[in-house]
Amino acid sequence: MESKAEKGMATLRRLFGAGISGSTLPPAFAQMTVEHLFGDLWQRPGLAIEERSLLTCTVLVALGREAEQKIHFRGARNLGIPRAKLEEMLMHVAHYAGWPVSASASRVLDEVWRAMDAEAAKPA
Amino acid sequence: MESKAEKGMATLRRLFGAGISGSTLPPAFAQMTVEHLFGDLWQRPGLAIEERSLLTCTVLVALGREAEQKIHFRGARNLGIPRAKLEEMLMHVAHYAGWPVSASASRVLDEVWRAMDAEAAKPA
Amino acid sequence: MESKAEKGMATLRRLFGAGISGSTLPPAFAQMTVEHLFGDLWQRPGLAIEERSLLTCTVLVALGREAEQKIHFRGARNLGIPRAKLEEMLMHVAHYAGWPVSASASRVLDEVWRAMDAEAAKPA
Amino acid sequence: MESKAEKGMATLRRLFGAGISGSTLPPAFAQMTVEHLFGDLWQRPGLAIEERSLLTCTVLVALGREAEQKIHFRGARNLGIPRAKLEEMLMHVAHYAGWPVSASASRVLDEVWRAMDAEAAKPA
Amino acid sequence: MESKAEKGMATLRRLFGAGISGSTLPPAFAQMTVEHLFGDLWQRPGLAIEERSLLTCTVLVALGREAEQKIHFRGARNLGIPRAKLEEMLMHVAHYAGWPVSASASRVLDEVWRAMDAEAAKPA
Amino acid sequence: MESKAEKGMATLRRLFGAGISGSTLPPAFAQMTVEHLFGDLWQRPGLAIEERSLLTCTVLVALGREAEQKIHFRGARNLGIPRAKLEEMLMHVAHYAGWPVSASASRVLDEVWRAMDAEAAKPA
Repeated sequence: MESKAEKGMATLRRLFGAGISGSTLPPAFAQMTVEHLFGDLWQRPGLAIEERSLLTCTVLVALGREAEQKIHFRGARNLGIPRAKLEEMLMHVAHYAGWPVSASASRVLDEVWRAMDAEAAKPA
Repeated sequence: MESKAEKGMATLRRLFGAGISGSTLPPAFAQMTVEHLFGDLWQRPGLAIEERSLLTCTVLVALGREAEQKIHFRGARNLGIPRAKLEEMLMHVAHYAGWPVSASASRVLDEVWRAMDAEAAKPA
Repeated sequence: MESKAEKGMATLRRLFGAGISGSTLPPAFAQMTVEHLFGDLWQRPGLAIEERSLLTCTVLVALGREAEQKIHFRGARNLGIPRAKLEEMLMHVAHYAGWPVSASASRVLDEVWRAMDAEAAKPA
Repeated sequence: MESKAEKGMATLRRLFGAGISGSTLPPAFAQMTVEHLFGDLWQRPGLAIEERSLLTCTVLVALGREAEQKIHFRGARNLGIPRAKLEEMLMHVAHYAGWPVSASASRVLDEVWRAMDAEAAKPA
Repeated sequence: MESKAEKGMATLRRLFGAGISGSTLPPAFAQMTVEHLFGDLWQRPGLAIEERSLLTCTVLVALGREAEQKIHFRGARNLGIPRAKLEEMLMHVAHYAGWPVSASASRVLDEVWRAMDAEAAKPA
Repeated sequence: MESKAEKGMATLRRLFGAGISGSTLPPAFAQMTVEHLFGDLWQRPGLAIEERSLLTCTVLVALGREAEQKIHFRGARNLGIPRAKLEEMLMHVAHYAGWPVSASASRVLDEVWRAMDAEAAKPA
């Protein structure tokens, strides 16, 4: 039987790849994030992981949290969510949370996609 | 060929039922809402109407806009989105926008469901 | 020479009429509000009182603070700002802070105007 | 050894009294709130419960979450935090999150104190 | 008869000068921004363009959207709104949305003015 | 008898050290900040300066104002508030204002502590 920490690390690897490493979260906060947020919440059956990813990106756009958008747009792409769907979400959210948060998020989306394209183009 | 206003009214009827009537929006704002928001944005092909509804509810929870939650939770139910899915969304959003907005939204969700159950139980 | 408190009360009377009375602010907070906010800030020369009123209403809409909109929409009408101008502001702000805050503010604006129309219609 | 749920209920009783009963949170969300929020987070040693209560009230004021202020101002009083300290916090927060959230919170504080005074005055 | 796109480009040129070029908005979102936001909303008669500019800056300060402040403070200067008026707005907004958003906006305002002074000083 | 400006400068020196210098606030706003915010509000007796500092940091985290966190986390350390207490506050606030604001604030806290460690390690 997997522990919460193991489940959390599995979710994190699925979202952000094998290369995830130490964050700057304080240790107790990092542990709660792995165990509770990614090991418990993200593993609940009520929503598919792709749905959780899209909802998370939506909240991050609505609240204008650009540093976290960088992480979760990457996660969305790793799960196979197409850029066009995220762009359509941005246009939709612009009407409910204001143009400025979506305009800023568009820049972040563009940066994330360019960076991941460049990573994909590099020889192994 | 349908006008934007006709498309918008069709979206509004699908979301909120035949009984929708005058809002307290000023006339020019009401017209822009029907034509641009519901006639143009909500009719775009990039996201299914059920996806737009769920994203809208998610933004309204994240921003704590309870008056509009009342309207769009109703729309979500009319589109067939199950209560359990909205409740799971609330738990997820609690972690990204804070417990308080989700606790308040839980109350609104409960009120909307009770009201619609009561309406459904009335003889025609 | 007027004290800050006298200046503040003069601003309050101009905005909200002779009938203003005790708020539920704690005494020290109420005093700071009269002296610093209305006696000092609102009396500064850089913006006309009508401009301060419109900016205040704009911020209250953008932040979705409906209880305070009730007070400052009333102030705006007392200063002669037409309803049409406030409605146009609401439509504009809808695009920068999201439709939901402006939809809620439209309801408040309608309530304030109806209440003030009723007060104006009463015989003295 | 106490379970998380038992610890959570103990925190809830200490904050909100013996009379706490069912909320309108969906069952899974209610369980997570008792176990994780009140059973885990609120029991951590890094901050005293009075400090957590004051910080929680502060966040609820800054974010303008009045429904939850009603609950946590009550909790603060049950822990012995004096009204004067909460009022001073409101004045302080007014400068960092804006006058409107503190003005609204002042009304809530006044209502909570009156209600609890009335409860205290009732014969058992 | 001008199209919405032509009207939108005219507004954009008036606000941001002849040098405006491609943004990082996705194409469909960019088109909606030109046509609906700048071609329709900003051209409505209810508010002068200088009033729309000042209201937009005010919302961007209140919501702490610094990336967009950079663009719209520039637009405000191009329309002839004096720096002193924007500074007075910042002080006013500090009291309704909190000191921190206005302190950050002051830095942005200073950067924009310095950059535009430097551009103006360059020989053609 | 000290003037408000002298009291304000004394608070500023206590929080941010002898090296504080000109900000980019416009002069009238800077003067109001020294006199009213730091000379009047922060000197009021209802809360100790350490309590005001912790509450200020809490609001800045809840509202996601990172530029101002840099300044006030520094102030908190200068007053002797331990890093562990601020980290515990961050975990607590994550549950009331959302994980993203606390994750970003964790990065700021780490940067501030490293910078101040480096300054402390430099020979005079």
